[in-house]
Amino acid sequence: MEYPSKLVEGAVEAFNALPGIGKKTALRLVMHFLQTDIKQSEVFAEAILKMKKGIHSCKHCNNISDTPICSICNSTSRDETTICIVENFRDVIAIEQTGMYKGKYHVLGKLISPMDGIGPEQLMLNNLVNRIEQQGVKEIIMALNPTINGDTTLFYISKILKNQTVTITSIARGIAFGGELEYVDDITLARSLASRQPYEFYLNGK
Amino acid sequence: MEYPSKLVEGAVEAFNALPGIGKKTALRLVMHFLQTDIKQSEVFAEAILKMKKGIHSCKHCNNISDTPICSICNSTSRDETTICIVENFRDVIAIEQTGMYKGKYHVLGKLISPMDGIGPEQLMLNNLVNRIEQQGVKEIIMALNPTINGDTTLFYISKILKNQTVTITSIARGIAFGGELEYVDDITLARSLASRQPYEFYLNGK
Repeated sequence: MEYPSKLVEGAVEAFNALPGIGKKTALRLVMHFLQTDIKQSEVFAEAILKMKKGIHSCKHCNNISDTPICSICNSTSRDETTICIVENFRDVIAIEQTGMYKGKYHVLGKLISPMDGIGPEQLMLNNLVNRIEQQGVKEIIMALNPTINGDTTLFYISKILKNQTVTITSIARGIAFGGELEYVDDITLARSLASRQPYEFYLNGK
Repeated sequence: MEYPSKLVEGAVEAFNALPGIGKKTALRLVMHFLQTDIKQSEVFAEAILKMKKGIHSCKHCNNISDTPICSICNSTSRDETTICIVENFRDVIAIEQTGMYKGKYHVLGKLISPMDGIGPEQLMLNNLVNRIEQQGVKEIIMALNPTINGDTTLFYISKILKNQTVTITSIARGIAFGGELEYVDDITLARSLASRQPYEFYLNGK
């Protein structure tokens, strides 16, 4: 596509470089900035730069945070004997949104992925063992995506922690609420059958 | 949704304020910036601000341009006796892409839209009559979207130009290439029937 302006072309390319944003969407977004006040462009650019410059990775759990230690790690009302291991901060947001978890987190940043050249050493696991010992952790909940990479990571971490006196659990795999049996893949259905639950538990979740 | 960081929340809201970007997409884009180098955030922010600060509206045709007069208006190889009237610069890009038009343009910026409170005075029509007289324009091609607003604008401009000795034409309305008759709306089909073309023209476009 040829643009009547190099400046517009530059902005379109900047948007187009973002994941999931195609040329047409990029052009629509640039159009939006062209039609609005310069103040709006400045506020937008400022929000990104301010975030990028000010953001911390929590020293305890690696979650993103505005302060060196995140609000969840700082909270005294949360149960520090339970740690939930997740891949990234989006998973933290998703779990927090359920309002059902009151423990702490540990964010790995990545999952082991041999295909992408990501080995265990690239996971942010350094202080996990320390935390388990210092906080007197009793349970580690693995809340990783149900993929090959997730399962590999889960297996690796369970091996690291085998000398610790913690219970390792994983979030349940099964058929999602509202899902239909006939469309569920074989592995999920087989696992869901194998880990069937008592009827009372199914109804009340207790 | 609650974010673990006010800075992230600010950036998500900035993206979410853009047209067609929802909360989840916004979060995915912010995630991208969190995972990449700060240099990339700076290049991105810079591209938008540089465009917004450096962009001109061409003094002749109102098209966007890096210079006070755009490259199309400056070009001596283009036919200045034909002006194509479009709503915005995206339409200019779309028409340029066909490679079939060698005349000049006039960008209105907006279409008349009583529902949105946009009257004829908000259209960039000020120098259109001057251009017609100075350039010795023979044909005005109206290439506006086939909507109520487009038709209203077309009607208004045709009234303004009724004392000028120019031919006013409109791009053909009809069934799009690859379209199927049964899914075409009534108005389009009726118009397409009424403005039927000789078979030879249909085949060769001449």
